[in-house]
Amino acid sequence: MDTTMLAARRDRALGAGAPLFYDRPIHIVRGEGTYLFDAEGRRYVDMYNNVPCVGHANPHVVEAMARQQATLNVHSRYLHEGIVALAERLAALHGPAIESVVFSCSGTEANEVALRIARGATGRQGIVCTNATYHGNSEAVGKMTRIGEAPGSGHNSQGDVRAIPFPETLRPLVPGASEAELAEAYLERLRGVIRGFEEDGTGFAGLIVCSIFANEGLPDVPAGFMARAAEMVRAAGGLVIADEVQAGYARTGRWWGYEGAGFTPDIVVTGKPMGNGLPLAATAASKALVDGFRARTRYFNTFASSPLQAAVGMAVLDVIERDGLLDNVARVGAALKAALAERKPRCAAIGDVRGHGLFIGVEMVKGGDALDPDPEQAIAVVNRLKDRGFLTSNAGAFRNVVKIRPPLVFARHDADAFLEAFDATIAEIDG
Amino acid sequence: MDTTMLAARRDRALGAGAPLFYDRPIHIVRGEGTYLFDAEGRRYVDMYNNVPCVGHANPHVVEAMARQQATLNVHSRYLHEGIVALAERLAALHGPAIESVVFSCSGTEANEVALRIARGATGRQGIVCTNATYHGNSEAVGKMTRIGEAPGSGHNSQGDVRAIPFPETLRPLVPGASEAELAEAYLERLRGVIRGFEEDGTGFAGLIVCSIFANEGLPDVPAGFMARAAEMVRAAGGLVIADEVQAGYARTGRWWGYEGAGFTPDIVVTGKPMGNGLPLAATAASKALVDGFRARTRYFNTFASSPLQAAVGMAVLDVIERDGLLDNVARVGAALKAALAERKPRCAAIGDVRGHGLFIGVEMVKGGDALDPDPEQAIAVVNRLKDRGFLTSNAGAFRNVVKIRPPLVFARHDADAFLEAFDATIAEIDG
Repeated sequence: MDTTMLAARRDRALGAGAPLFYDRPIHIVRGEGTYLFDAEGRRYVDMYNNVPCVGHANPHVVEAMARQQATLNVHSRYLHEGIVALAERLAALHGPAIESVVFSCSGTEANEVALRIARGATGRQGIVCTNATYHGNSEAVGKMTRIGEAPGSGHNSQGDVRAIPFPETLRPLVPGASEAELAEAYLERLRGVIRGFEEDGTGFAGLIVCSIFANEGLPDVPAGFMARAAEMVRAAGGLVIADEVQAGYARTGRWWGYEGAGFTPDIVVTGKPMGNGLPLAATAASKALVDGFRARTRYFNTFASSPLQAAVGMAVLDVIERDGLLDNVARVGAALKAALAERKPRCAAIGDVRGHGLFIGVEMVKGGDALDPDPEQAIAVVNRLKDRGFLTSNAGAFRNVVKIRPPLVFARHDADAFLEAFDATIAEIDG
Repeated sequence: MDTTMLAARRDRALGAGAPLFYDRPIHIVRGEGTYLFDAEGRRYVDMYNNVPCVGHANPHVVEAMARQQATLNVHSRYLHEGIVALAERLAALHGPAIESVVFSCSGTEANEVALRIARGATGRQGIVCTNATYHGNSEAVGKMTRIGEAPGSGHNSQGDVRAIPFPETLRPLVPGASEAELAEAYLERLRGVIRGFEEDGTGFAGLIVCSIFANEGLPDVPAGFMARAAEMVRAAGGLVIADEVQAGYARTGRWWGYEGAGFTPDIVVTGKPMGNGLPLAATAASKALVDGFRARTRYFNTFASSPLQAAVGMAVLDVIERDGLLDNVARVGAALKAALAERKPRCAAIGDVRGHGLFIGVEMVKGGDALDPDPEQAIAVVNRLKDRGFLTSNAGAFRNVVKIRPPLVFARHDADAFLEAFDATIAEIDG
């Protein structure tokens, strides 16, 4: 099928404006490991997809999925050992404070549960997020999408969800401040929003952050900020929600993004990579928090906590562990990040190279000013890399960050090939 | 694994209070067609599950799922023919007004999309639902869960979601009224809520109903009510949302519940049976409505519109069509309903037998008063039927309806076996 014709059919069947990547979208028909193949048989190295974390078409996952679907796949109001075992295994990957799991079908649903746990447990409504985040697409969770913050004020007044500026060292809230002063400045903003919630009667329920601030553009965070923010949240009677949908599941070379960020959450949300493409998400917390949530809501989710989710979820964890993917991520991610960072002094268009494990951001800036974001340049790089056979995307608060986030099975030789394509792309653009 | 030990592990891993069916929950390990099997090998006839609509472990679905997962399963921002073809096929199952589809992962997500389409298109917020309904578990959709209505008032004032009494002939709003008068009385309540939204500035966006009022208990609706309600909604500039999560996909012996209910929706929501257990849901409407929604929201759903959803969704439709399941549902459903209705005059505990196709409700009432709901009796019947090897549940506005809703492949001989078990159960209870 011709790409233009397929796009036209798609516009009618899915409605115009269903998002597509790239100036000239690609028609992908097959995947294997780190590679995707289009309808003409062209191979692309997948540097974007975190969902197929153990590789496209991973045979262990396919086999587990097929076996379970051929055996039993039914809702969770009958006893079944599978989902219990998956919940136990997930909880064991956290510290002792995380004991019980509520499964759902998407990060959106899992964040809905997290907000309801926090609001129900505290009896208060106010949620703090950052000003350049995304946690999902429902009405309640969508309220947190890039809501900005009232300029010049210590807090803003957007109902029960309010934002603080995301913490970063590159474009600091207080120019010239030391890292310790900077952490304090961001904490002061958090303090202001909490106080605002308390003063106007909304009350403060909790803070939600992506542990690596992925949608914000993977900023380097002032040392100590997150640990002290978590402390401040708890001192105010709130709960700390770590959205690990992007940060978790070995993405950073550790199981959880919060480990690297140096804080301990009360509630952990996971999603995307959990089922290697099967809709599967989870909200984990202490048994007391989950018991309270279940007692208040009688939460039930038709497709969640199913034997199918359990079998596939276990298979994904099996592969991560058996194939040593945490180590692979740490090793290949560090080498790739270092190699990209080496290029920065040689290229005025690269403002910064940041990231954790196999989640790396390359900031594109206007020549001459290392802080002037250039989203058009990022988009151009992404499209040219695609033409060279490497799939990335752009992200960040200014949309100027080339986002590199391959499956966890991404290999060193693919990183080397990517660096060649990256150099050629930058040469074209700089030239 | 011992059932008691498994339940204890489950309480810890999933939190206490994760819903379970039956006084003594069952430990199900395998399914095949209409049957479920517990850990001791005991066979149960599944009279409850609408999700595995083409039968537990249906081999055509298993094969499609495994093949697609082994080929490609990725998000929808690359072109892929599968999801386009599924959207086209779904739209073609409706009238010409339904053209485009937004896929998601659960009925909850699909109803979120429906509300956003209605509110965005009208620029108004007010949604009317019934007073004993359920449309999902998110914050926005959960607002519609059994919200009741302000007694004695033409409308109530619960923010942007308000209820009308669900239409029924058994316990009519106006006792002694003719069916035409009764329809008019329910319409008057709808008129009152719409007027209330208009008067207080909320504005009226639309009406959402399950086309067969499943959670309300499958009431017989006064003739002409739904057609005239839809007319009234449109005259007031609102949109009609048919929640076909339970009513659709051949459940009533027709493709859609709204066909039997005699109205044409502007927005159709489908979910549960679409993927035979794979999380898959959809919101369908005119291209203009979907285009507007996509333009306003840039809606994206990580796991939705995937090649996996497409392949499995197509396989389910294949089986429904190839195996003539609409006909099976109409035939076996009518026979089962008639057989149950025959029993009513002989048994004071049966207040009513209602339903459509393979979705039948048997209302349990207190002896001597055919209108006095007896939820305890319904629960007792459900538990005793389970002990006899037949899985049902209870539902309805008063929870006194024994809910019979087997997979669409349910056969006449299983209906006959069920009737024997039902008779024995009723004899015990009446005796």
